[in-house]
Amino acid sequence: MKIFSPATVANVSCGFDVLGFCLESIGDEMVIRKTDEKGIRITKIEGFDLPFEAEKNVAGVSALALMEAAKPNCGFEIEIYKNIKPGSGVGSSSASAVGSVFGINELLGRPFDKTQLTNFAMKGEALASQCEHADNIAPAIFGGFTLVKSVTPLEVLQLPTPANLFAVIIHPQIEIKTSEARSILPKQIDLQKAITQWSNVGSLVHALHTSDYGLLSRSLSDVVVEPYRKQLIPHFDDLRESALKNGALGCGISGSGPSVFSLCHGRETAKNVARAIKTLFSKTDIPFEMYLSRINTEGIKVIG
Amino acid sequence: MKIFSPATVANVSCGFDVLGFCLESIGDEMVIRKTDEKGIRITKIEGFDLPFEAEKNVAGVSALALMEAAKPNCGFEIEIYKNIKPGSGVGSSSASAVGSVFGINELLGRPFDKTQLTNFAMKGEALASQCEHADNIAPAIFGGFTLVKSVTPLEVLQLPTPANLFAVIIHPQIEIKTSEARSILPKQIDLQKAITQWSNVGSLVHALHTSDYGLLSRSLSDVVVEPYRKQLIPHFDDLRESALKNGALGCGISGSGPSVFSLCHGRETAKNVARAIKTLFSKTDIPFEMYLSRINTEGIKVIG
Repeated sequence: MKIFSPATVANVSCGFDVLGFCLESIGDEMVIRKTDEKGIRITKIEGFDLPFEAEKNVAGVSALALMEAAKPNCGFEIEIYKNIKPGSGVGSSSASAVGSVFGINELLGRPFDKTQLTNFAMKGEALASQCEHADNIAPAIFGGFTLVKSVTPLEVLQLPTPANLFAVIIHPQIEIKTSEARSILPKQIDLQKAITQWSNVGSLVHALHTSDYGLLSRSLSDVVVEPYRKQLIPHFDDLRESALKNGALGCGISGSGPSVFSLCHGRETAKNVARAIKTLFSKTDIPFEMYLSRINTEGIKVIG
Repeated sequence: MKIFSPATVANVSCGFDVLGFCLESIGDEMVIRKTDEKGIRITKIEGFDLPFEAEKNVAGVSALALMEAAKPNCGFEIEIYKNIKPGSGVGSSSASAVGSVFGINELLGRPFDKTQLTNFAMKGEALASQCEHADNIAPAIFGGFTLVKSVTPLEVLQLPTPANLFAVIIHPQIEIKTSEARSILPKQIDLQKAITQWSNVGSLVHALHTSDYGLLSRSLSDVVVEPYRKQLIPHFDDLRESALKNGALGCGISGSGPSVFSLCHGRETAKNVARAIKTLFSKTDIPFEMYLSRINTEGIKVIG
């Protein structure tokens, strides 16, 4: 069985640690086969250099978590074709973690629901980021926009996605460690800034429900985390200014970076934004990759 | 023209400074008459002892703000029949501020929209609470649940209200000054608590849109403000426990207190909650008043 496991954007400006959305045009592929022999074997990895031992591989660890709960009378072989570069900030480890559990669940006849799959995948994610979080996993599994209401117990809300929403992603090829991006955040924040942030989270959710692109734009603001993390991303302010000037609804750091997302109303606007960002970043000496994608409301899926 | 100007609940647990909802069964009444003589005259105040000079009266100040913008060729007389006790925490000053501007706007043929009326009323509110805020004014004017996305510029979002939602209010007859309730709050809060709070605000908005009473219940939590302010309200923890044990979806401080609200699914549950709270509070030596009200989706209105 062949799986498409999508890239995702976590945080989404105001929604630090809780919001995320799913991309359509970039993701990993995985092939999963049932075997008579029990256990998980990773038999092929293409694209990037990752460990083959199941216990040391994100996709392996999440698969093992599922196996422990399912105790099936069989095993699984996994082939991983990675397109999402590890450390890019668009949910590379989540895509791996999600792909194996989704595929195995399909082959077993779907004994687990999406929330349970999210829980298994979080075990894999924890291997990569040293903490269990679901803000990339949830949108990959549920599709569209998600809000992770709580992790213990896990509760994921599937939010509506306005029909005509596109994302432009730029991935500057620099390294930001998630742990570093976490450590530069203050442990305490101004109450006033927190109020601004939760006002924006509330209005962003309302904007998604009402397909109000203007309100969505006015809600895509991060007064808490971005002021610290943007220092880790060269030319972030110029990039953001250019995206907004060219019609983006909002622009922010994807996950803990270095990727930066812009949300746009309509494909034409997204193309304009992509063009402007490309022109701007081409003048720097930092190599980069770009993606333009509709918001993927389906999430992870079987493709063969 | 006779106006019913409703009481309101601000903050709504997780939504400190931004959320509010409107009540149906308690509110002030005001009678407003066009006069040839220019200016605002308050000719009658019943219920509580409040100043008659327009410049010192909340309803007068908000009316004067409207008059300055409208510059009408007439004046207005205002009679105020107050039912909402000042300082009760259910938007007494907001009801006054809103009543006069709503009534005058009606008599002038509605030159101003609801957001403009909110702006005028905030001038009156500022007289009472020393700061311009709209979290009681907005639900009184718009009805139902509101989210004040920003004050400058003013942007109010009207959120949907699930059909079968009731509030139980208990007003312990003690005095809490808004300024005191503000001053005990810390200027800085834990980032982790802020994340919990904005997760709850997001899920509360989603719960209102989907009429998901269970999610509404799980979202009605305040980890930021309530831990400080509840000390000002005797027996708060017992009261909350009793409300939840008797089926309330949530229970929290109304505005800056001392009133406490419980939100309930259905009138029968609300009655049970009211009964339990009444029994509990009757054992204390603090006098109190109680109200049971459907959520008022209409807001302020002409009643004669």
